[in-house]
Amino acid sequence: MDKSCINIGILGWGTVGTGVSKILINQNSLISKNSGVQLSLEKVVKRTLPASREGIELPPNCLTSDPAEVVDNPDIDIVVELIGGVSEAQTLITRAIKNGKHVVTANKALLAEHGGELFQLAQKHKVSLNFEASTAGGIPIIKTLQESFTANQIESLYGIVNGTCNYILTEMNENGVDFSDVLAEAQEKGYAEADPTLDVEGIDAAQKLSLLIALAYGVNLSIDKFHVEGITDISKKEIQYARELGYVIKLIAIAKLTDDNRVEARVHPTLVPERSLLANVGGAYNAVCVIGSAVGPTLFYGQGAGEMPTASAVVADIIDAAKSVKNGIYPSISHAWFPDVPAEVSVCPIDDIHTRYYLRFVVIDKPGVLAKIGNILGDYNISISSVIQKEPHDTDTVSLMMLTHKALEKDIKTALDQILKLEVVKGGVKLIRIEEEVDF
Amino acid sequence: MDKSCINIGILGWGTVGTGVSKILINQNSLISKNSGVQLSLEKVVKRTLPASREGIELPPNCLTSDPAEVVDNPDIDIVVELIGGVSEAQTLITRAIKNGKHVVTANKALLAEHGGELFQLAQKHKVSLNFEASTAGGIPIIKTLQESFTANQIESLYGIVNGTCNYILTEMNENGVDFSDVLAEAQEKGYAEADPTLDVEGIDAAQKLSLLIALAYGVNLSIDKFHVEGITDISKKEIQYARELGYVIKLIAIAKLTDDNRVEARVHPTLVPERSLLANVGGAYNAVCVIGSAVGPTLFYGQGAGEMPTASAVVADIIDAAKSVKNGIYPSISHAWFPDVPAEVSVCPIDDIHTRYYLRFVVIDKPGVLAKIGNILGDYNISISSVIQKEPHDTDTVSLMMLTHKALEKDIKTALDQILKLEVVKGGVKLIRIEEEVDF
Repeated sequence: MDKSCINIGILGWGTVGTGVSKILINQNSLISKNSGVQLSLEKVVKRTLPASREGIELPPNCLTSDPAEVVDNPDIDIVVELIGGVSEAQTLITRAIKNGKHVVTANKALLAEHGGELFQLAQKHKVSLNFEASTAGGIPIIKTLQESFTANQIESLYGIVNGTCNYILTEMNENGVDFSDVLAEAQEKGYAEADPTLDVEGIDAAQKLSLLIALAYGVNLSIDKFHVEGITDISKKEIQYARELGYVIKLIAIAKLTDDNRVEARVHPTLVPERSLLANVGGAYNAVCVIGSAVGPTLFYGQGAGEMPTASAVVADIIDAAKSVKNGIYPSISHAWFPDVPAEVSVCPIDDIHTRYYLRFVVIDKPGVLAKIGNILGDYNISISSVIQKEPHDTDTVSLMMLTHKALEKDIKTALDQILKLEVVKGGVKLIRIEEEVDF
Repeated sequence: MDKSCINIGILGWGTVGTGVSKILINQNSLISKNSGVQLSLEKVVKRTLPASREGIELPPNCLTSDPAEVVDNPDIDIVVELIGGVSEAQTLITRAIKNGKHVVTANKALLAEHGGELFQLAQKHKVSLNFEASTAGGIPIIKTLQESFTANQIESLYGIVNGTCNYILTEMNENGVDFSDVLAEAQEKGYAEADPTLDVEGIDAAQKLSLLIALAYGVNLSIDKFHVEGITDISKKEIQYARELGYVIKLIAIAKLTDDNRVEARVHPTLVPERSLLANVGGAYNAVCVIGSAVGPTLFYGQGAGEMPTASAVVADIIDAAKSVKNGIYPSISHAWFPDVPAEVSVCPIDDIHTRYYLRFVVIDKPGVLAKIGNILGDYNISISSVIQKEPHDTDTVSLMMLTHKALEKDIKTALDQILKLEVVKGGVKLIRIEEEVDF
């Protein structure tokens, strides 16, 4: 089968949908020249009509409010799902696949939740289900894991995959402002949603990590199976102390293969060395570090969101699907989502991880306090690599910061339970994990 | 056609060949699990036998000294050329293609010189000719340009693509040592060849740029068609002055699309802002920045050479070719190398570029010198953005450093001709171009 023109239908004409329609129409000859496939945007579905977008004019009869004109339309070869959310997107993608259509989606929430069913359905109907834009926007990290690093055991993976959090932390770091002030500003600028929960609580990053882990380790891990911690508790004071110690605080999505063949998966604020490339990924940008057994350390950097960067990834996926249509083949789908392929790795609970820690206590300013805390840490084999005590300010308490050497999380927690019972320790403790392996 | 096991033959068992054989044998089940293709290493050609390599044992009868056992062997599906050099590699690849074999090569010199003929031949015989490992080692920049950024007009591209030069410049910058001393050390450590000309004169970087330009702009540009300048003239003094001005000197391979649709192509030492990601790519690492019309600024970082990183890229190419064999299709080849597709862009000569410049003069330490130089620059519309004059040391001359705003290279050259005729200017001038667009 050689089909000369491949017909595209888009579900959803929001920011990304608009970008995709712009590229498909305005860059049509560039795409054809670069890839050898001829694409035609046939239908765009928007629930409420009429609608128009600056910078793009759709062909006559292209715009419709009825998704059936895409998913049930025999002329459409590739369905691009950009409506977001889970329930309706799932229904429409399912129908499109059953109708034999290749599907492209940017919907990480849907895939993190229902990836298994959808990929199995796609395999059954011999269509592709591409999702490059779901993670890290314009950065081709999905293709890299699926095609370029296939000869590697992925040793570890570190991602700044939420632009909102990175923007907030960068602003807090560079301008010494508070979380709430930056969040308000980010909302004004459109970098953060009116309800920022999914972003600032780390849930969006966790959904992306779930997809990356499926590709890297072949395990389908829902986000309630691993430790997810957002940035709402990070104060400008913590950021300043971290900097004094030579670190920058970033929200990092981490996956590692442990020596005993378990997968560590976690999303949390993390201290990274200030001279590392990852520490210097600023603003709303994304970056993913992958350390492979053969390739060694790598880093991929770019815009993780926004109209055109995300559209760039969506259209790359469309082109891949179009090649499949043209050649009458369909690409193989990662085994992660197939229950008949047993996972070869299990999940390492957060209590079992070994890492370094930044700890900040507020203590009474009197002799012997450091020794008391140090003794308890010592009892649990937790060794301190550096300590800073700040001058007391307006009260009789001081902040005591410690960096530990690598320790077992379970030991840290037990030790902290005991330390917090000390009379000299006031209030809680700030715990932030440190990542040294990204020091490049 | 569905072939269950794809047979591989490797030409050349040097560093990279050894790495590829290790992966194909030791990671065989990982590859099969990740990609769905079953690979079998059938033949490895090494000119002088017997031979052995640490960490790998080849199957019986695998090793041979006769390349015909690979390129003329009807059982071999994919030929991996890793002998390097131009003439013999060309002969063997040509024979393999004519025998209907898919080819994977890491040979940038061969492709930069004879890419046109070889890709046309591959197209004629419906086989793929993959070359991911030819540029930036383990970094999947070829696939990214060919598949992920297809919807983008590539606005510009900046690569640190020669690990030897980057190692030398990093050492000079961090440890204040001279070029010749670092070169000797790099040769000892195996980071530089006994004859380092191809590396330190920028030729290796230029060959890689030629391949990147073919993919980005569809023009087949041999390296004698653009400006290539190495790092042999960079002294530790220049590096130190650059740093005082907030810059780091890197050897950068640059390609840009100009407003009048011409391609700027050049390789030369370049001042990049010290806080940029590119400036912080240290040691023997590579990085490529691509700025695309949709995706915006991106950066790809990793090891550009060495046994396993390069082998990682070669094996990814083998897997892609194996999928083609398995599915009975062959991927399309960039139009850059086909004479029937006219290039849509012409080359912008170096005299026509607009960029910023670092200039260092050695001048007699007396009043009015700065004015004289400034007047001549002004006559040619060259505006100065900053000046540093160093205290005189042991002579009566001083170093005068200037950074210019953007200016036309032709104007700079004419102005410098006149400035160098001034009696107050002693010796030549150091000119290093500045790149601001990589400031991310």
